[in-house]
Amino acid sequence: MADPSSSAVIGIDFGTLSGRVIVVSTDDGTELASVEHVYRHGSIEHHLPESDQRLPASWALQDPDDWRQVLSRAVPKALEQSGRTAADIVGIATDFTSCTVLPATAEGSPLCELPELRARPHAWPKLWKHHAAQDQADRITELAHAREEDWIRRYGGKISSEWQYAKALQVLEDDPEIYRRTDRWIEAADWIVWQLTGQENRNTCTAGYKGIYQDDGWPSRDYLAALHPEFADFAKSKLDFPLSPLGGRAGGLSSRAAEWTGLRVGTPVAVGNVDAHVTAAAAQAVDPGQLVAIMGTSTCIVVNGDLLAEVPGMCGVVRDGIVPGLWGFEAGQSGVGDIFAWFTKNNIPDSYSKLAEQRGQSIHDYLSSLAAEENVGQHGLIALDWHSGNRSVLVDHDLSGVIAGLTLATRPEQIYRALLEATAFGARKIIDSLTTFGVPVTDITVAGGLLKNELLMQIYADVLNRPLNVLTNPQGPALGSAIHAAVAAEVYPDIRSASKAMGAVRRNAYHPNPDNAARYDELYREYCELHDHFGRGGTEILHRLKQIARDAQS
Amino acid sequence: MADPSSSAVIGIDFGTLSGRVIVVSTDDGTELASVEHVYRHGSIEHHLPESDQRLPASWALQDPDDWRQVLSRAVPKALEQSGRTAADIVGIATDFTSCTVLPATAEGSPLCELPELRARPHAWPKLWKHHAAQDQADRITELAHAREEDWIRRYGGKISSEWQYAKALQVLEDDPEIYRRTDRWIEAADWIVWQLTGQENRNTCTAGYKGIYQDDGWPSRDYLAALHPEFADFAKSKLDFPLSPLGGRAGGLSSRAAEWTGLRVGTPVAVGNVDAHVTAAAAQAVDPGQLVAIMGTSTCIVVNGDLLAEVPGMCGVVRDGIVPGLWGFEAGQSGVGDIFAWFTKNNIPDSYSKLAEQRGQSIHDYLSSLAAEENVGQHGLIALDWHSGNRSVLVDHDLSGVIAGLTLATRPEQIYRALLEATAFGARKIIDSLTTFGVPVTDITVAGGLLKNELLMQIYADVLNRPLNVLTNPQGPALGSAIHAAVAAEVYPDIRSASKAMGAVRRNAYHPNPDNAARYDELYREYCELHDHFGRGGTEILHRLKQIARDAQS
Repeated sequence: MADPSSSAVIGIDFGTLSGRVIVVSTDDGTELASVEHVYRHGSIEHHLPESDQRLPASWALQDPDDWRQVLSRAVPKALEQSGRTAADIVGIATDFTSCTVLPATAEGSPLCELPELRARPHAWPKLWKHHAAQDQADRITELAHAREEDWIRRYGGKISSEWQYAKALQVLEDDPEIYRRTDRWIEAADWIVWQLTGQENRNTCTAGYKGIYQDDGWPSRDYLAALHPEFADFAKSKLDFPLSPLGGRAGGLSSRAAEWTGLRVGTPVAVGNVDAHVTAAAAQAVDPGQLVAIMGTSTCIVVNGDLLAEVPGMCGVVRDGIVPGLWGFEAGQSGVGDIFAWFTKNNIPDSYSKLAEQRGQSIHDYLSSLAAEENVGQHGLIALDWHSGNRSVLVDHDLSGVIAGLTLATRPEQIYRALLEATAFGARKIIDSLTTFGVPVTDITVAGGLLKNELLMQIYADVLNRPLNVLTNPQGPALGSAIHAAVAAEVYPDIRSASKAMGAVRRNAYHPNPDNAARYDELYREYCELHDHFGRGGTEILHRLKQIARDAQS
Repeated sequence: MADPSSSAVIGIDFGTLSGRVIVVSTDDGTELASVEHVYRHGSIEHHLPESDQRLPASWALQDPDDWRQVLSRAVPKALEQSGRTAADIVGIATDFTSCTVLPATAEGSPLCELPELRARPHAWPKLWKHHAAQDQADRITELAHAREEDWIRRYGGKISSEWQYAKALQVLEDDPEIYRRTDRWIEAADWIVWQLTGQENRNTCTAGYKGIYQDDGWPSRDYLAALHPEFADFAKSKLDFPLSPLGGRAGGLSSRAAEWTGLRVGTPVAVGNVDAHVTAAAAQAVDPGQLVAIMGTSTCIVVNGDLLAEVPGMCGVVRDGIVPGLWGFEAGQSGVGDIFAWFTKNNIPDSYSKLAEQRGQSIHDYLSSLAAEENVGQHGLIALDWHSGNRSVLVDHDLSGVIAGLTLATRPEQIYRALLEATAFGARKIIDSLTTFGVPVTDITVAGGLLKNELLMQIYADVLNRPLNVLTNPQGPALGSAIHAAVAAEVYPDIRSASKAMGAVRRNAYHPNPDNAARYDELYREYCELHDHFGRGGTEILHRLKQIARDAQS
């Protein structure tokens, strides 16, 4: 075991718009450097880079070279900033958004980097928020139920349009030549590790959550053939390569990657991971029942359990999916911070913007300060937080937002607060569902950018009626990766001990107010009523409105 | 009969915030002068004039002296502006908001003008939009159903908190001394005529619509006693004074009123009337089936029928209630223009206000121009127009607004359009209800301030799938009053002939677009579903939210 006082590790978090690199001391997780590299092309939603060809609605792609630039630009900078040398770096680990997935050759070259395929949208990596494969996802789910496939219950009964199968089936159906030239359908989380080590190496987390790998097997050939004859061999031919446990060593840094990063050839590289799941390690929440909510534009919830449970609407349950030896549960909310951002961008009058500016506050801080002056329930509003669909207990991207209780006296800060509350109710819905179906939740830690809104945090504590811990390092995923790097480097024997030493949490940072909690119990019942009416077949009006809007557009 | 080419009449419209006086030629209704006088105290909602005493929520009072000032200030100005002399004025008529009602002595003095009662809120006139007597209204309605009173069906099954009985019962219950000192409980519409003529004289319109006067009688002593023992004689002692038909002569101008107005003593004064009902004459819509929608902050709908019909949720049906000899039907929407105003005040971002200003447009015009660029249904939204409750087919002030279908791509002009449409659906609901229950609607004329929004008018034509006529004189009620003055002065034998000669209408100003109408049929079905779910017992959530908000406030 290396000496913790002298060694350091690098954690790299590949996000939606940038990559963040931190250098961390292996003894106690002290951050020695932090460098962000903003992707040149970000989320590619309108047209391909250097091309006029417009992308259809709901598409979102990325450029693999943007990811490489994080290695070659940000890592050397971070190393320099840390005051350490390459010799001090005992390990490196990465995490990625997911399911961000790409077609590649057998050698790992992204198809979009082959000159003859560069102008073909389906040759490019599909970012997690590419939502154009909903039709495929619907058929994948329907067929699984029709054939009573066991695995469908592990995904809350629904397979998301964001995941590997829907996105791959869309390629096959829309551009079969690209599909045929795809030797590997690979998560960016694994592709980047391949780039670092020169060896293909896949992780159990994305294989389970996004690749429907359960009980050591993939969906059957028969099932896949029934989706599309040419899809029969999809899993066997394009996914089925050796899997490695999280925290494991994927290999040593290749000479090419050493050149990019300025690190030493052979530096241990950890198995790939996902931003949300790796945050559990940073949050010191890797024991059963310790739930982590990563709250940003959307919220991802992860928690471990001793036992397998099938929870309606959960994103997935995967053995060894967060830490080896436990069942990892994942759930989420598709819109949280982006709902608040939408509201402040589109619904805040001039007079408010001016007053916020005069007071030197962000519009979020200003609205929160006004909203905090009122009692719980005083606004008379209930909202459904489905502006970006629902991927929580309903898993339905065609739902949309609702607000009820508006009067001529309703003020902007009241609607804002109702939206904050709606997302808290949405989170409670997930936690209720977990506990009801056999996944105990013993404590809750919040991570992510929304931590900075104290009103929001207090609302969550009140709505959930539990104390909240908070992750104190703003780079939660990168810190989680650094912890995994320390395990891959054998500084620690396992994720649990590394997390305990290097994680960064303030426990019980928010306490519920009992009066508020009681009032929120009442409002939560109203939320549940609307939720079930609009989301569980009481009415199909939200689906019909989507359809009417689509028809009207054309 | 006077010579139409040389005579003129005066019409005075007493609104919520001001009185408007017009002088009109009796031959063809040409407007010779128009003067507005803004009330000093407007709608008194926070505290009594010259007093710190705060009024409770939902109160709205007026000062009778504000009304007198219209006579003494605006009438002389209008006469001067018209270029006519007092000798040319052959008649004068008034219309009022309703039910605006006050307690007075047997001599017609408002109780609030007695020095010892000036500080007592219940001594003041209650404006139509005083909504603090909901509890009383609920009991009035319940008891009527429990006792199977025939008349309740003439009011759509519900008696409004805005009307004479609920407001009077609130006085009795909250301040019995004021109630006991009330010799007359009188509509402002009649009180102002008393001021003009020196003689008490009540009109069939307000007696019927707001005073539950049906088939030559009032609600029975037994019924009233069951509401409150001391209320037994309410109708007989405080309401039951001689009624006169609309268009009739109430008397001649008193010397006191002649002094105020500068008109001649003895000038014929017409029986009092209500702003909405009198507009039918201005709109040349006094025959059966001719519906008038007066669209402003709220919408009032009036239409005549040959036959009695009982329409669910209608405000009222009254024999001789609009013109003598026909059944007058009234219905309405409690929030229309004020919903649009609420939205533009509270929900429009900086960037929109700036662009509207740059283009020299009002925010309404700017939003409408953006909204008009989209196809029907493209926004994917449905709203319920209940921000100010529902006084249409549901008659329930405790309902509130709902909007469904919001996404992160929803823009302000789309929500604005959904609100415009919601009010059009609300209007269609009323018209559907009328025709279903036996009141034919043959044509539709729109009056009021919202006429200026052409997108709104086109949406109404499309949603209703009918051509719309528009009233071309912006002072519809005042013109209607002037027409009534001409009848009282015997320039014309009846309202119908006076209306034909003096009314001001452009027929078929808007035609429905068949494609839009078909799409709106589809959206209307969605509106109806939400309407019935939230308004007809599918859920009581809006009522519960109101209650939670009230509890939270205290």
